[in-house]
Amino acid sequence: MDALNAKIRVQNTLSLDPKWQDFNVPLKRNTNIVERPANQTTLTKRYTEEAVQFIKDHQKRPFFLYFAETFPHVPLFASPEFKGRSARGLYGDAVEEVDWSVGQVLAALAQYNLETNTLVFFTSDNGPWLTCKWNGGSAGLLRDGKGGTWEGGYRVPAIARWPGRIKPGQVTGELASAMDLFNTCLLLGGVAIPKDRPIDGVDLSPVLFGTGAGLRTNQFYYYGDQLFAVRQGAFKAHFQTRSGYSKDAPAQHNPPLLFRIPNDPSEQFSVTNQAGVVAAITKTADEHRKSVEPGKPQY
Amino acid sequence: MDALNAKIRVQNTLSLDPKWQDFNVPLKRNTNIVERPANQTTLTKRYTEEAVQFIKDHQKRPFFLYFAETFPHVPLFASPEFKGRSARGLYGDAVEEVDWSVGQVLAALAQYNLETNTLVFFTSDNGPWLTCKWNGGSAGLLRDGKGGTWEGGYRVPAIARWPGRIKPGQVTGELASAMDLFNTCLLLGGVAIPKDRPIDGVDLSPVLFGTGAGLRTNQFYYYGDQLFAVRQGAFKAHFQTRSGYSKDAPAQHNPPLLFRIPNDPSEQFSVTNQAGVVAAITKTADEHRKSVEPGKPQY
Repeated sequence: MDALNAKIRVQNTLSLDPKWQDFNVPLKRNTNIVERPANQTTLTKRYTEEAVQFIKDHQKRPFFLYFAETFPHVPLFASPEFKGRSARGLYGDAVEEVDWSVGQVLAALAQYNLETNTLVFFTSDNGPWLTCKWNGGSAGLLRDGKGGTWEGGYRVPAIARWPGRIKPGQVTGELASAMDLFNTCLLLGGVAIPKDRPIDGVDLSPVLFGTGAGLRTNQFYYYGDQLFAVRQGAFKAHFQTRSGYSKDAPAQHNPPLLFRIPNDPSEQFSVTNQAGVVAAITKTADEHRKSVEPGKPQY
Repeated sequence: MDALNAKIRVQNTLSLDPKWQDFNVPLKRNTNIVERPANQTTLTKRYTEEAVQFIKDHQKRPFFLYFAETFPHVPLFASPEFKGRSARGLYGDAVEEVDWSVGQVLAALAQYNLETNTLVFFTSDNGPWLTCKWNGGSAGLLRDGKGGTWEGGYRVPAIARWPGRIKPGQVTGELASAMDLFNTCLLLGGVAIPKDRPIDGVDLSPVLFGTGAGLRTNQFYYYGDQLFAVRQGAFKAHFQTRSGYSKDAPAQHNPPLLFRIPNDPSEQFSVTNQAGVVAAITKTADEHRKSVEPGKPQY
């Protein structure tokens, strides 16, 4: 938690118009530092050029491109072409540059005739950093933000695109986790899922291609190494709650606070008289806890 | 306020699955009661049939159709064809039936070749009724709900459609008010705005047709006959605040609580060090108060 608190202090002092020279962060290619401090105003553009080049170089064979944009994580930067362009301030500028970047990747897929055999999956880091105010992002209608187990700290948007395979313009209420991309990509690439260890993901294919019900039935919400909440089907039970990065001790809930998420995604109206649901989720939580072998913290 | 409190009591006792027989409301044609209690499960369908017939009857000459759907206002009802259809419960069912209804109106415009000379403007009643929990609706990312002057109590969605005149798929951050529809429709119909009285609306044409900046520069937020807040450009100043239909006395703010709405539509992060903005909005509020002649309450 000391590292976490230090991180919060850093974020609290972040300027709304940061200078990249003030952040002594390295830019690496593989294990070599190529620039330090990295000129962060150029990152989106340089990453995008690399991604487009990668697609060009690998157009003749199957490839997996993991393109992790730096922004709109704080500290925020945008290139001169994008800075000051949006009504939403620097955050909006960074989002518009990421939008441009995604457009470049999609254009490269079209250019090399890869659209109909490429799954593009766009998703996000979780939770607005509320201490950075509006430059920390927004969870929209979801409650709270980063560092907590309310939906605003966990749930992220995701868009999947595969012309000819995925029906466009559909919205699903099925559960999915970033962990499921591992299973989904392996199976789509014809690779078997390893059997020598527990795998937490499921194959998203039924949801993506509309071939059946989603395979994910629950979601576990952790704060550090503590299981705070469990989603199962429509319901989410909070056994403990705490606002993102609050210094207060978590509130304990017995029976758990229960919400029906499809009806109440903002977790405003807790539900009672659902003893059967509470019992089922509590059992899932207990079984999950027993199944987890704590690892050594890497943080 | 007594009538208001009575209304709140009624809403608090509303069932999540109401019976239309329990609401002794009249259905009128002009001034005549044609059914009492009205079978509210049939209203969306019957209103829609009337609207489509009206369009058919008036297809050869200019017309103005004001189609006020009853739902998804509480108490909620949906026809048997829509009840139980959505994952969002009865509220979602009612929304899906309204969506069907709008589709019927648009289909009628297409059928009679009226699409390219008809402005369709779709908007909503304001503010979710928080006491009705998830059946009272949702303000999405906006703060609070009906009966208050936070954005969740005032701001509503609006969609304008006019093929060939309005560019599709655009989103505007310009201010607009339902009061502006009066000016806009009169001017589009070639009718002069009355000059014998103050008119609070402005012409929305520049915003709709992309021909210039919006003409609305501010918005006044009332609770009863009290001016609680003023939006001017990007900023909104709250002189008083109170959660929707709270029984607590309003909180007084001097200087006013200030938010920058395009950056912070959820009114989470108040802004300070903006003395010039506060002075300008306070002047607007004072001038507005002086310009208003209180009428006799009609409630």
